Amino acid sequence: MKFSIEKAVLNKAVSQAQSVVERRNTIPILSNVLIEATPEGVSFRATDLDTEVVDRAPATVERPGATTVSAALLNDIARKLPDGALVNIAFDAASGRVSVQAGRANFNLATLPREDFPVMASTEYTANFTAPAPVLRRLFDKSRFAISTEETRYYLNGVYMHVADGEGGRTLRCVATDGHRLARIDAPLPEGAEAMPGVIVPRKTVAELKKLLDDDEAEIAVSVSETKVRFANPTITLTSKVIDGTFPDYTRVIPRGNTRRLEVDAADFARAVDRVATVSSERSRAVKLALDEDRLVLSVNAPDAGAADEELAVAYADEPLEIGFNAKYLQEIAAQIDRENAVFLFNGSGDAALIREGGDESAVYVVMPMRV
Amino acid sequence: MKFSIEKAVLNKAVSQAQSVVERRNTIPILSNVLIEATPEGVSFRATDLDTEVVDRAPATVERPGATTVSAALLNDIARKLPDGALVNIAFDAASGRVSVQAGRANFNLATLPREDFPVMASTEYTANFTAPAPVLRRLFDKSRFAISTEETRYYLNGVYMHVADGEGGRTLRCVATDGHRLARIDAPLPEGAEAMPGVIVPRKTVAELKKLLDDDEAEIAVSVSETKVRFANPTITLTSKVIDGTFPDYTRVIPRGNTRRLEVDAADFARAVDRVATVSSERSRAVKLALDEDRLVLSVNAPDAGAADEELAVAYADEPLEIGFNAKYLQEIAAQIDRENAVFLFNGSGDAALIREGGDESAVYVVMPMRV
Repeated sequence: MKFSIEKAVLNKAVSQAQSVVERRNTIPILSNVLIEATPEGVSFRATDLDTEVVDRAPATVERPGATTVSAALLNDIARKLPDGALVNIAFDAASGRVSVQAGRANFNLATLPREDFPVMASTEYTANFTAPAPVLRRLFDKSRFAISTEETRYYLNGVYMHVADGEGGRTLRCVATDGHRLARIDAPLPEGAEAMPGVIVPRKTVAELKKLLDDDEAEIAVSVSETKVRFANPTITLTSKVIDGTFPDYTRVIPRGNTRRLEVDAADFARAVDRVATVSSERSRAVKLALDEDRLVLSVNAPDAGAADEELAVAYADEPLEIGFNAKYLQEIAAQIDRENAVFLFNGSGDAALIREGGDESAVYVVMPMRV
Repeated sequence: MKFSIEKAVLNKAVSQAQSVVERRNTIPILSNVLIEATPEGVSFRATDLDTEVVDRAPATVERPGATTVSAALLNDIARKLPDGALVNIAFDAASGRVSVQAGRANFNLATLPREDFPVMASTEYTANFTAPAPVLRRLFDKSRFAISTEETRYYLNGVYMHVADGEGGRTLRCVATDGHRLARIDAPLPEGAEAMPGVIVPRKTVAELKKLLDDDEAEIAVSVSETKVRFANPTITLTSKVIDGTFPDYTRVIPRGNTRRLEVDAADFARAVDRVATVSSERSRAVKLALDEDRLVLSVNAPDAGAADEELAVAYADEPLEIGFNAKYLQEIAAQIDRENAVFLFNGSGDAALIREGGDESAVYVVMPMRV
């Protein structure tokens, strides 16, 4: 194996691939990245056995071949090489070493045999479709904050991607919840996605997915089976096992009869919640919302530290209502609102609230109340 | 106590004062900031019993007075208040609460009695002098990296500020060392400093000092006694106990007979050291310097991970020499070099090296070699 590659290209490809590598590995080869050089270019493959990333990069390949080197080390080297340098990488089978040379710097790295690298088995996918990167980014970005971190409820440790009946017909839907709040995001169903089984995409895969979706112009190829999901843009392929569990019936959690309607500037609301929550040092900060005609008073009372309140001018025309929520949950939901105004629909003080972005039904949030 | 103050002014003063407050305090009042309002303005005072900061700020004082509130809480509130807001702060002695009001936000904070706040006892200072902020900043900024973190050698846990005989006569000198490397920085002796006792300024005080010295135009008033040191700019006064110990005789550590002279671009050198050190994951990364006529080869050999070398064009006209150093120490010293070139003076492979900035004798660094 022998090829030359631009520093910036190497740096980008290796840093994207190596991010799936777990810091502490008991299996040495899982710390490595598999470099494969073919006449078409070079690919960098990394895995944690559950998730696999392959990054393809253009390179001038003099001699095809493959080997594995430490992902962290190659990433550090690629980052530190002089900008604009051409990097020459060669594998010497006799010594079992990879040489990396750029400018006047030479590196000589230990390898592990390519045969030992666990390439993820290929799968028969049930559904294959494409979707624009911004559509997938919205689905996952707006739902991921609600993913549960409780390991005992492993079936909530991801985003449930499935086909559902939305307001405007069949939709591609992403749902995440931790039992306290829920996000339900819809997008028009892409052609070919109808047969897709519902899958729970793990938290780590959702995080890795971000870099695959950063090009607004890209069409992303999505493949789904009962056990795996694959996302691919022209240079990166991310394959992941899905969580082996049943996502609970979230539809029962979404309130239908909430009629008390509050409309508020989302950014103003988030900042005011942040301010009044300052006085409470507890992890679960309860903020009280007191609603009256076109008036919202947010307040927090922490007997030891003090109290805080702030009034906001809002649109509200129903009966007075007092209801409490976890401050962090309110802020995280408010941060998802892209339009100017957030619409809250309440029922009683003990009932879950529904939050929307204006009149848009394609993104819906639910948050459970707290006693205050 | 009742006054109004601009949000930005409050935010700056409180954030500067509260940074000396230790996160975990067993004595509740040490978590608080003492607010004192007088007709001249308001001051915010915080302490950890070893270091005290007083920040003065302009304010419209309606009713003088004083009390203490949680430093972290007041800091959080000041940061989160709307930009440009006028903040009204009042202490209600009857309820024992401080109210903070800005715009439509109201806070009501618990207090502790001002009488309980441990104001640092005043001291008879032996020497009082003034020095421009940039001069003091240079003395401490260029020496602090070498401060020891070993708690058993407590007398090395600070910067030794004293009067010494420098190249150009009597100087104000700062020295720090951890036994492996040393920094010795000189400045012209300010008038009135001659009688100053040598003091070891603790690491934390050196860190706090930074914000006092950020105005290039400011003259800093310095007061020194055997037990305390005080630095003051027009708004901030920092008073600190000094380390009760004897700083070792550092002059014996500074090599005098080193004649082998290497001159190298400091930034290029630092980057090359950083690159070759990548292959070694050990904490104490040894880099070998192999010197030959106008040629320096840096190399690292880590049997498990691999090897790296890089050649630099340098000015060197002496006999070939091989010598090893801790990579981190070399990088930290190279980062201090403000001029383009670093000058290294070597003796043998087992001897300490002396590093200067060009021909400037007012900043000198020493680093011990490592066997490679």
